[in-house]
Amino acid sequence: MTAYLELDAAAQDLLFREARTANTFTDEPVGEEQIQAIYDLVKWAPTSFNQQPLRVVLVRTPQARERLVQHMWDSNKEKTAAAPLVAILAADGEFHEQLPTVFPVFPNAKDAFFSDPAVREESARMNAALQVAYFIIGVRAAGLAAGPMSGLDTDAVAKEFFDANHKVLAVVNIGKPGENAWWDRLPRLEFDQVFRTV
Amino acid sequence: MTAYLELDAAAQDLLFREARTANTFTDEPVGEEQIQAIYDLVKWAPTSFNQQPLRVVLVRTPQARERLVQHMWDSNKEKTAAAPLVAILAADGEFHEQLPTVFPVFPNAKDAFFSDPAVREESARMNAALQVAYFIIGVRAAGLAAGPMSGLDTDAVAKEFFDANHKVLAVVNIGKPGENAWWDRLPRLEFDQVFRTV
Repeated sequence: MTAYLELDAAAQDLLFREARTANTFTDEPVGEEQIQAIYDLVKWAPTSFNQQPLRVVLVRTPQARERLVQHMWDSNKEKTAAAPLVAILAADGEFHEQLPTVFPVFPNAKDAFFSDPAVREESARMNAALQVAYFIIGVRAAGLAAGPMSGLDTDAVAKEFFDANHKVLAVVNIGKPGENAWWDRLPRLEFDQVFRTV
Repeated sequence: MTAYLELDAAAQDLLFREARTANTFTDEPVGEEQIQAIYDLVKWAPTSFNQQPLRVVLVRTPQARERLVQHMWDSNKEKTAAAPLVAILAADGEFHEQLPTVFPVFPNAKDAFFSDPAVREESARMNAALQVAYFIIGVRAAGLAAGPMSGLDTDAVAKEFFDANHKVLAVVNIGKPGENAWWDRLPRLEFDQVFRTV
């Protein structure tokens, strides 16, 4: 099947086939420049109206780490406490304030489509989720392992690190994979379970 | 910044830097094997509980194309009618039925976490959105251009092509880019507008 892809095999492996959700990490730190390089790459991936609602808190101090870990599910506490870097990914429900700048081709989009907070929240969640996926791919592009988690009290983490307009979507552990970093591969759905032609 | 990335420069360009949302396409068809190869690659990317809620309808017949185009916003009708292949991407709110198979490490997850339809819908939307992003990256990995669109009557399209348990998240035009395929690059947020360190 790889004959149908233009992406080279090493890149396929790095991003998809050999990349895995890591549960343990080495002590090697993850520098600010690596995260900047990841963003500098994945920022180009598309969102609806170019709205870019993703907001990220990088948890570096021990105090902040403690404030986060208390709100993780028990099964996620230990790895979140130990990972070299932890990122909290959220959707900004006030993304529309930046639309006139980021979507200048339709200066009225902010008022025409996004005056309703409920519409904004749904759009922010959907598009920030796309950006969560781009970020995970970006972490892998940097040769690092990502450990994305949804097992946490998202409301409590939002209150701790953001304001009321933000919805926390995921927490991602980042670093070089450690010993016994992953489970066996879990099964994926077959093509015919996912795709249908009409 | 690319010095901090392990992904080679050609792959960076193919997936992110030179890839663009296409608004026009050539007549070159997109074969079933290409879509299978894309899925065979991106299926490995992670979802929460390995739930894989994405479902895709590939619109190939003129009749089906017409049924879809009528529900697109006017600004999206022409390109959706003309693209070599159009995919409708939806979230399956009944993904939990497959959890015992795809997440055998925790056989009780289906009942423990996903008995509430509202919880399931939120989880399906979030994780299918991740898979929409992986799919867009996969289309680009195949050397094709993707034209993802949210400008459509999603409820009407869901009714036309799915059952009541599915939420339509996006329609994606797929093909080789045609003449004047894209707008000028739109601005991206600066690193400091998105990331904050604590």
